[in-house]
Amino acid sequence: MPSLCSADLWKTSERWDLMGKELFRLKDRHNADYCLGPTHEEAVTTLVAHQTTLSYRQLPLLLYQVSIQCLAVWGDEPKPRFGLLRGREFYMKDMYSFDMSEEAAHRTYESVCQAYTRLFARLGLRCVQVQADTGNIGGTLSHEFQLPADIGEDRLLVCGTCSFAANVETLSPDKTDCPQCSAGTLVESKGIEVGHTFYLGRKYSNIFKAIFSNHQNKPTVAEMGCYGLGVTRILAAAIEVMSTEEAIRWPGLIAPYQVCVLPPKKGSKVEEAAFLAEDLVHTLGQFLPHLRGEVVLDDRTQMTIGKRLRDAGRLGYPYVVVVGQAALEEMPKFEVICQHTGETVFLSKDGLIDLLRTVETV
Amino acid sequence: MPSLCSADLWKTSERWDLMGKELFRLKDRHNADYCLGPTHEEAVTTLVAHQTTLSYRQLPLLLYQVSIQCLAVWGDEPKPRFGLLRGREFYMKDMYSFDMSEEAAHRTYESVCQAYTRLFARLGLRCVQVQADTGNIGGTLSHEFQLPADIGEDRLLVCGTCSFAANVETLSPDKTDCPQCSAGTLVESKGIEVGHTFYLGRKYSNIFKAIFSNHQNKPTVAEMGCYGLGVTRILAAAIEVMSTEEAIRWPGLIAPYQVCVLPPKKGSKVEEAAFLAEDLVHTLGQFLPHLRGEVVLDDRTQMTIGKRLRDAGRLGYPYVVVVGQAALEEMPKFEVICQHTGETVFLSKDGLIDLLRTVETV
Repeated sequence: MPSLCSADLWKTSERWDLMGKELFRLKDRHNADYCLGPTHEEAVTTLVAHQTTLSYRQLPLLLYQVSIQCLAVWGDEPKPRFGLLRGREFYMKDMYSFDMSEEAAHRTYESVCQAYTRLFARLGLRCVQVQADTGNIGGTLSHEFQLPADIGEDRLLVCGTCSFAANVETLSPDKTDCPQCSAGTLVESKGIEVGHTFYLGRKYSNIFKAIFSNHQNKPTVAEMGCYGLGVTRILAAAIEVMSTEEAIRWPGLIAPYQVCVLPPKKGSKVEEAAFLAEDLVHTLGQFLPHLRGEVVLDDRTQMTIGKRLRDAGRLGYPYVVVVGQAALEEMPKFEVICQHTGETVFLSKDGLIDLLRTVETV
Repeated sequence: MPSLCSADLWKTSERWDLMGKELFRLKDRHNADYCLGPTHEEAVTTLVAHQTTLSYRQLPLLLYQVSIQCLAVWGDEPKPRFGLLRGREFYMKDMYSFDMSEEAAHRTYESVCQAYTRLFARLGLRCVQVQADTGNIGGTLSHEFQLPADIGEDRLLVCGTCSFAANVETLSPDKTDCPQCSAGTLVESKGIEVGHTFYLGRKYSNIFKAIFSNHQNKPTVAEMGCYGLGVTRILAAAIEVMSTEEAIRWPGLIAPYQVCVLPPKKGSKVEEAAFLAEDLVHTLGQFLPHLRGEVVLDDRTQMTIGKRLRDAGRLGYPYVVVVGQAALEEMPKFEVICQHTGETVFLSKDGLIDLLRTVETV
């Protein structure tokens, strides 16, 4: 979808005025107005409207992209806060769905929400799906996906008894009893928004005429939804909620590398173990093809193990393997530090291979 | 590198005024000026200038990205010409080099030019490297990589005797004798620009203080080059120069799929060959792992072979395999149409595997 969106489309949907200062606006050399589109309901609905032969048999239709977005309201504070969390440019996944009926559209909406929930579970992140305001995107139903965190800028109300959870924007802020189960008490917490879904209904498809032929071959307006994931924010928020002061921790699936192997310092009395470290890296590549490209040999052997361990902590390898004295003994062992649990274990080569066999990569 | 570039940097390099209407300019909500940077000399040189410990041992340093670029001068004609060739948004690869001396920087410049030449050769495209104007990027030496084509918008002068070639902008347009060998005559042709290299020297590194420590540990200003490839343009220009009226032709390496297999039409007298087509797709996947995901079975068997052949021509598969009568004979053969040569051959399954074994993929 285009980075530069024509103002005409945005005026047609009335979002040109609605968005106010959130929108980056610019002109071409003929003085025509454009904006850097933060979402693409107008563009994608127009695209679908141009498919004149769209049939109900082709629905649901889901279109998505991952792209860099620029927002005028973030990152221009005199003292920028939270680094990547509020950068002015960020990666976003946005997706738009077109369905043949309200019922089908609600099923699509539900299945995307479930996919988002699975995605955060696979990343090992606790995520809460909360009722949210539809804001300047619109529609009749909306949910945010929030990672609970003290530095979060959103205030959430979560029921202690049932599954109810909402952004405080959607409720009176002093509400304490749960509107869903009545029995529970709402507890306030803070969250970082990492995803947002909207049930749009026909808001955009009516305006831009996104039409398909139904079972009776009659032109029918599509039911829409839209769904966003803040790719950069997920990265930043995950590090925020998982890390300690000493060590960065990534969800294993998005850690840049899974394993760091540290050979002994040059000139130390166990220097001869260096070749065992190289051999280990080779063996891991051989027996664990899913870890190819995921194992780093930190061969800066002019530095002490201690210094390199500190660097490894700062880089956030889920597993750090120290090759030292224990590797030279009759029953060779490797010292393995598991970042996520903080545990250190001594394992034989086979034991290490067994441990790493279960590491999930993408 | 940022999509939104601060006007301050561009004013420091004096390109803010120089670029005129080519630049998309915009303001944030505090009225600060930005542009959508078409190239990133300012941003990348500032980045390198901030690496305070840069040593000659770390040079050459080459930094690159592939990103979407927006240009204000293209795509806003009332009747847009040449589709993808002059779209307002396009993918660009831009790279910037930092070297310790003029000599080293010239070596880097040369090796990037050679890499570009190899890249076009691997794509099977005839490409001419021509002397070019340094324009609003600057520097002391510049080359364009041009694909000769009648619809090209650049005018080139190429010597018939030696290797001299130049964009007409760099010579007097009525020049006919070669300035390099004196013996040859310059012949004019048209070209589509798909790459551009600049030897920048210290133009940006002086202004932004991109400095490294030399052998004597003295702070020294880096020598720079910059190098662009028009990714979208290469795609569009390749199709332009290779296709016929009837069939689109891609360079094999960037064709979306390499092979299309056509089973017979449902209800035809060779219908029973359908399972041989499915079997063939399976066998190709098994014996030619590099073609996995590159073979399409066009199972729209309600359509005639003729119609599907026409579609295959429009989609530009380098190889189309028709499974028909010949596949049912005692010595089964497949009809193979090679798009690039226009040839049709009948091959056994082994013969087809041998032919496709040499297909290069990325």
